[in-house]
Amino acid sequence: MSARAGAAPPTPVTTRGETVPTVPPAEKAADAVDVTALLERGRTLATPVLRAAVDRLAAPMDTVAAYHFGWIDAEGNPAAGDGGKAVRPALAVMSAEAAGAAPEVGVPGAVAVELVHNFSLLHDDLMDGDEQRRHRDTVWKVHGPAQAILVGDALFALANEVLLELGTVEAGRATRRLTAASRALIDGQAQDISYEHRERVTVDECLEMEGNKTGALLACACSIGAVLGGADDRTADALERYGYHLGLAFQAVDDLLGIWGDPDSTGKQTWSDLRQRKKSLPVVAALAAGGPASEKLAEILAADAKAADVENFSEEEFASRAALIEEAGGRAWTSDEARRQHAVAVRALDEVEMPTRVREEFVALADFVVVRTR
Amino acid sequence: MSARAGAAPPTPVTTRGETVPTVPPAEKAADAVDVTALLERGRTLATPVLRAAVDRLAAPMDTVAAYHFGWIDAEGNPAAGDGGKAVRPALAVMSAEAAGAAPEVGVPGAVAVELVHNFSLLHDDLMDGDEQRRHRDTVWKVHGPAQAILVGDALFALANEVLLELGTVEAGRATRRLTAASRALIDGQAQDISYEHRERVTVDECLEMEGNKTGALLACACSIGAVLGGADDRTADALERYGYHLGLAFQAVDDLLGIWGDPDSTGKQTWSDLRQRKKSLPVVAALAAGGPASEKLAEILAADAKAADVENFSEEEFASRAALIEEAGGRAWTSDEARRQHAVAVRALDEVEMPTRVREEFVALADFVVVRTR
Repeated sequence: MSARAGAAPPTPVTTRGETVPTVPPAEKAADAVDVTALLERGRTLATPVLRAAVDRLAAPMDTVAAYHFGWIDAEGNPAAGDGGKAVRPALAVMSAEAAGAAPEVGVPGAVAVELVHNFSLLHDDLMDGDEQRRHRDTVWKVHGPAQAILVGDALFALANEVLLELGTVEAGRATRRLTAASRALIDGQAQDISYEHRERVTVDECLEMEGNKTGALLACACSIGAVLGGADDRTADALERYGYHLGLAFQAVDDLLGIWGDPDSTGKQTWSDLRQRKKSLPVVAALAAGGPASEKLAEILAADAKAADVENFSEEEFASRAALIEEAGGRAWTSDEARRQHAVAVRALDEVEMPTRVREEFVALADFVVVRTR
Repeated sequence: MSARAGAAPPTPVTTRGETVPTVPPAEKAADAVDVTALLERGRTLATPVLRAAVDRLAAPMDTVAAYHFGWIDAEGNPAAGDGGKAVRPALAVMSAEAAGAAPEVGVPGAVAVELVHNFSLLHDDLMDGDEQRRHRDTVWKVHGPAQAILVGDALFALANEVLLELGTVEAGRATRRLTAASRALIDGQAQDISYEHRERVTVDECLEMEGNKTGALLACACSIGAVLGGADDRTADALERYGYHLGLAFQAVDDLLGIWGDPDSTGKQTWSDLRQRKKSLPVVAALAAGGPASEKLAEILAADAKAADVENFSEEEFASRAALIEEAGGRAWTSDEARRQHAVAVRALDEVEMPTRVREEFVALADFVVVRTR
């Protein structure tokens, strides 16, 4: 796939900190849905069960996990931490409703998916050497590498435990899907690490990696409630397709925010992905596009790859790289890709018979994911 | 529990490199069983399935895992590696037979248990900074910490996958037991790490830690084949009790070998556990025993705890510490504890109705575990 294949004419680009990108009005079918309330409901239902599960961990793993989730600070004092957007729990709860079950039926699934997500964050932050997450020091930075490994392992095991202790056939099926998603997550991290050492990564490779790292678990969040509610595999598969493409849309927006996002919103440094020399979608699309800006960018990034102190470059140096990415079409392509994946996700909903209200909520959540600023 | 409570009079102690400890003749009911053949059968049945599962991993994780299992060397050339004693696969296969099923029924369980065991080795070696395993450099040493984390995660996920893709109710029950064992394994490693920073560890704490680190997964190996073969929970629980106490016997012997084992057999350095200042059973039992040797030992170990270069102490210095442990009764107590756990394990077999031949094999394997030299 070429970076420009099938792309619509670039939309007017936005400057850093603005909302990226706008959803076409045709998809805005669900104006009446209160997405904030939807996210809040998922969080409210899942958090007590998540906390009870984490409380089962032996000391000091319970404390380390509570720090990671933002429930306590580094000194062990209670904190009203930023637990993230909670998109996954909301989806898992809606997923149960898609199968005609009560939202509560999706809760063990929501908790299991959150546990797997946070297992991967703990390990990835250590592997990547990331020192900050959600405006706070990462676990390995505060509690050391051994605790990051150990608590990650514990959360992963706990995820399966929370599902399998339901003791039902449905729980076995749900765990199988969660296991497949976990394997994809690990594959994606392996690809991410190997791409760091490569000079050139294709757009297809980048999309495959992002599908593994972000798509697979969002897909699972979208099917797991339905599976627990007794849905058949055809329904679960369609819901997973919605979630997978929603994940790719989510990640495209993340990649835009990683370069042009407002640090106050994202909690990351300015030009965060450029500092880390990440081969994210805007970068690989710009490199694949050809033309003078693309070639100039390739030259500069090849030199950067050999530089030791990229993270300390000046604001101007990053701004000029970002401008080249934009000029080569990488920003517009990624913005367009987010909309394209959004459309594919919403279309997958047509394959599932579900209450109209639930469908509207899925559409509204897809809209939210694409227009978010953090 | 006091270190001396219920202990029989100390048996004559052996010198380093000799077989430790001998099993009382009364338990030697299964002379006709060929344990080597039993281990070989488990290995022969499980290895092809294990290799096929590992082959599913995306590059470069498949290569890293193959190195860890000893199938290739660090350069990627085929190797006829030392895959370990393969006690767990043998037990899982026998476990199926205990439930009246064919040995093959236990194979996915054998593979899943081996995958979990090796996931924990990969992560533990990194956390503990261990550079050697089975006479070779550990994965983190050869392929880096990120690969050790990632491939460990992948093996853990694969373990659940191998079971759950059977798609049966029994597979769900087996996965639940494996998950419980995995959690115990992680708890045990957390305890092991926290004990390193403590001056005093009780015999009970040490036994709890060893039960988690070694007992729980051996217990699961002993029940998983039976569960896959349709055994009820009562039968599975009894088989787990056999496996748990077998694990504690196994670990007691390991702790003896960790101090007095022959490096040519164990593949470890001389006085390996003393070099690492491990609070293993002989040490904690010696410290708990009281008396002049015990007090002298406590004094020396307290000073060692502050020393920076314990691993470079002379052979004589370690030999004098080992002599004090022995004089205080730590060696005899641990040797006796191995026999005591062996007896409890064998008694648990009485709770299960199984073919006489299979029972004899379980007894023979218990005997083997206690008299092994590596």
